[in-house]
Amino acid sequence: MTTITRVSTHDLRARTSKFLHGSDANHPDPDYSAAYVVLHTDGALEGHGMTFTIGAGNDLCCVAIEALAPLVVGRRLSDITDNMGAFWRSVTNHSQLRWLGPDKGVIHLATAALVNAVWDLWAKERGVPVWQLVADLEPAQFIDCIDFRYLRDEVDEARALEMLTRMRSGQSQRLAELRRDGYPAYITSAGWLGYPEDEVRRRCQAAIADGWTSFKTKVGIDVASDRRRCEVMREEVGDERQLMADANQVWDVGQAIDWTNELGDARLRWIEEPTHPDDVLGHAAIRRGVKPVGVATGEHAANRLIFKQLLQAEAIDYCQVDACRLGGLNEVLAVLLLAAARDVPVCPHAGGIGLCEYVQHISVIDYLCVSGSAHDRTTEWADHLHEHFLHPAQVRNGAYVVPEAPGYSIEMHPESIASLRYPDGAEWR
Amino acid sequence: MTTITRVSTHDLRARTSKFLHGSDANHPDPDYSAAYVVLHTDGALEGHGMTFTIGAGNDLCCVAIEALAPLVVGRRLSDITDNMGAFWRSVTNHSQLRWLGPDKGVIHLATAALVNAVWDLWAKERGVPVWQLVADLEPAQFIDCIDFRYLRDEVDEARALEMLTRMRSGQSQRLAELRRDGYPAYITSAGWLGYPEDEVRRRCQAAIADGWTSFKTKVGIDVASDRRRCEVMREEVGDERQLMADANQVWDVGQAIDWTNELGDARLRWIEEPTHPDDVLGHAAIRRGVKPVGVATGEHAANRLIFKQLLQAEAIDYCQVDACRLGGLNEVLAVLLLAAARDVPVCPHAGGIGLCEYVQHISVIDYLCVSGSAHDRTTEWADHLHEHFLHPAQVRNGAYVVPEAPGYSIEMHPESIASLRYPDGAEWR
Repeated sequence: MTTITRVSTHDLRARTSKFLHGSDANHPDPDYSAAYVVLHTDGALEGHGMTFTIGAGNDLCCVAIEALAPLVVGRRLSDITDNMGAFWRSVTNHSQLRWLGPDKGVIHLATAALVNAVWDLWAKERGVPVWQLVADLEPAQFIDCIDFRYLRDEVDEARALEMLTRMRSGQSQRLAELRRDGYPAYITSAGWLGYPEDEVRRRCQAAIADGWTSFKTKVGIDVASDRRRCEVMREEVGDERQLMADANQVWDVGQAIDWTNELGDARLRWIEEPTHPDDVLGHAAIRRGVKPVGVATGEHAANRLIFKQLLQAEAIDYCQVDACRLGGLNEVLAVLLLAAARDVPVCPHAGGIGLCEYVQHISVIDYLCVSGSAHDRTTEWADHLHEHFLHPAQVRNGAYVVPEAPGYSIEMHPESIASLRYPDGAEWR
Repeated sequence: MTTITRVSTHDLRARTSKFLHGSDANHPDPDYSAAYVVLHTDGALEGHGMTFTIGAGNDLCCVAIEALAPLVVGRRLSDITDNMGAFWRSVTNHSQLRWLGPDKGVIHLATAALVNAVWDLWAKERGVPVWQLVADLEPAQFIDCIDFRYLRDEVDEARALEMLTRMRSGQSQRLAELRRDGYPAYITSAGWLGYPEDEVRRRCQAAIADGWTSFKTKVGIDVASDRRRCEVMREEVGDERQLMADANQVWDVGQAIDWTNELGDARLRWIEEPTHPDDVLGHAAIRRGVKPVGVATGEHAANRLIFKQLLQAEAIDYCQVDACRLGGLNEVLAVLLLAAARDVPVCPHAGGIGLCEYVQHISVIDYLCVSGSAHDRTTEWADHLHEHFLHPAQVRNGAYVVPEAPGYSIEMHPESIASLRYPDGAEWR
């Protein structure tokens, strides 16, 4: 009978910009940050959640979480979890706060932190990891977590029920495979834009030694240096390993097509974020123009409506859901269903701080409950800042190890919360 | 040689919810609010701007404005206005803050307040209203105010130059017509959802007596009461006047088509916001399904990319730009060009607090410089809260009077700023 009694927020930032970790064409100096929330209860349990930003504005997300906090304070956990879909809608459809979105920007990032903290608390109360909490739900309960409004022209409750029911078969076998082999992953932290060439080579070689088979680099500064960076990466990873490139939204539509085609020698598996994340039709045009290179996007896709349209317009080959950009796990579950209905592989965006910890659950849920397939799927990995978490995500032979600790894997060490606190923690003094 | 020395923000809210002014199917209790900003200078001039919200979260927009303030403080006004496009991009493409959008939500609403305050200051320095400042720009200068990135697959700089140059002819004649006849408008404040039937009748009759010929009502609660509300409005306004209906995003795509068709007897000119504002393809499907009723949307269209796609997908008959949802006048100018290139009429969203004051300039700019036409165009009017402004928008015979005071018409009386201050002003005590 857990009741949420109080919410506290913490503006946590790491000074990653000084090492150029995470640097790309649109974000040269990110300080990986977490607007971090703790749900305090009348018992021993706490729910932890966070949303991810890259520095300035992280405080804004904390203020937004506080604006949403009255929607959970004083409520019994079971009252919330008995109807997670209604709870989610109460947060995203608040009669006044929805004006600030709806379903986008600061208020939606804050929604992710709060909603994911509820999932963390629920899973801890059950004593299971979040992926298992979801896998243990009956299909009808899974569906009750989702607000299907605006989605029914693509996937409605009946279609979802049919999909989820079908996926019950073989679930325990798939779980055994996952526990044996892990979930396939790729590594981004070898190819940040700010790294010099020898650093990129060194990091590629180290990753290959660790068993990685799929790599990503950053592009979008100028064609010549992009060709060179792709060439260096391809030299290092060889022909049999995969290489992707990420433009982080810098191009116009026509420019994206021409530029990607200039990189043809690199034999890219996908070009990621080739243009503005809201431009669904632009992505569709780019996809038609760069085949056989695939188009991937999603880390800035504001909500399920953008994903619905990316799928309807046949604009993407890979669906890169983000655990914080979407309004928490409820909305992620909706997007998993939308992608599976169109047979588009989900390859979650991760990196930053905490994103790997979150998305490992999403990929397991997708494999166990929704798509039932790991074919052509891969989850992002970047090797930064995992040390701050009680139960950090782990990779082995280029694959995520299935997380087994109760919760959503997002709880940080108290010492990390103290040291990353902006602007007065040790990291910033 | 004006220099911006300091920025102050003010959380201003009116208790409109107690009268049900502004009530609709998704927003039953709006408190019309302004996140208000003043640019203080080393001279006598001040630049005033605001963004509009409906209550909770207005404080968040104020905090966001303060996060953007360092981008103008200490800068000479002329350094900014000599390259307004670069200035706009510096605000919307801040390397860390852009993560909170890009181009959407709280950070974009705050951008509107700050950017519009710069336009207000610029126009006051020139001693002209903002519409005239823009009309006095050479076409090349007009283009320099716009960031064409992401737009060039639809309208590029060369196309825009050709459009704007062509519109120079006849401009003084069109201005003389506007000053004589005003800019056509419609009235929303007769048909708020929360008003009882006799109140709606009374307000329609009063509006007709004042010369109004175009009316809007709210729908989306249930078909029967919507049919009744439309019937009452149509009875009052008669066959020769226009009637529109606004669903404020409550419907799924299929539901929007069926429901709108149920209202066929009302002979609606348009159905407004029939579904989620991000669902471009949904709007296109609805438009195909409800002809001859038109589809209108825009007050929640987050940015120029959404408008670009609404136009490319042939999803709208009316383009309802909003002066605050878009990131200030620079982005509005971009959308005016996009709409004119597709020959879709711009009918700005207004009402709330301050929106009528802003958008009267936008309609004049569109008529003088961009579309050159007032055919099938109409600007929203709601008769609330104008008393707070130094130079309130005025209507005569159902048309906006051309504003002539220097600036963007958005400066409030000091007494209003004091009394609306939340939570300690007289309005809230």
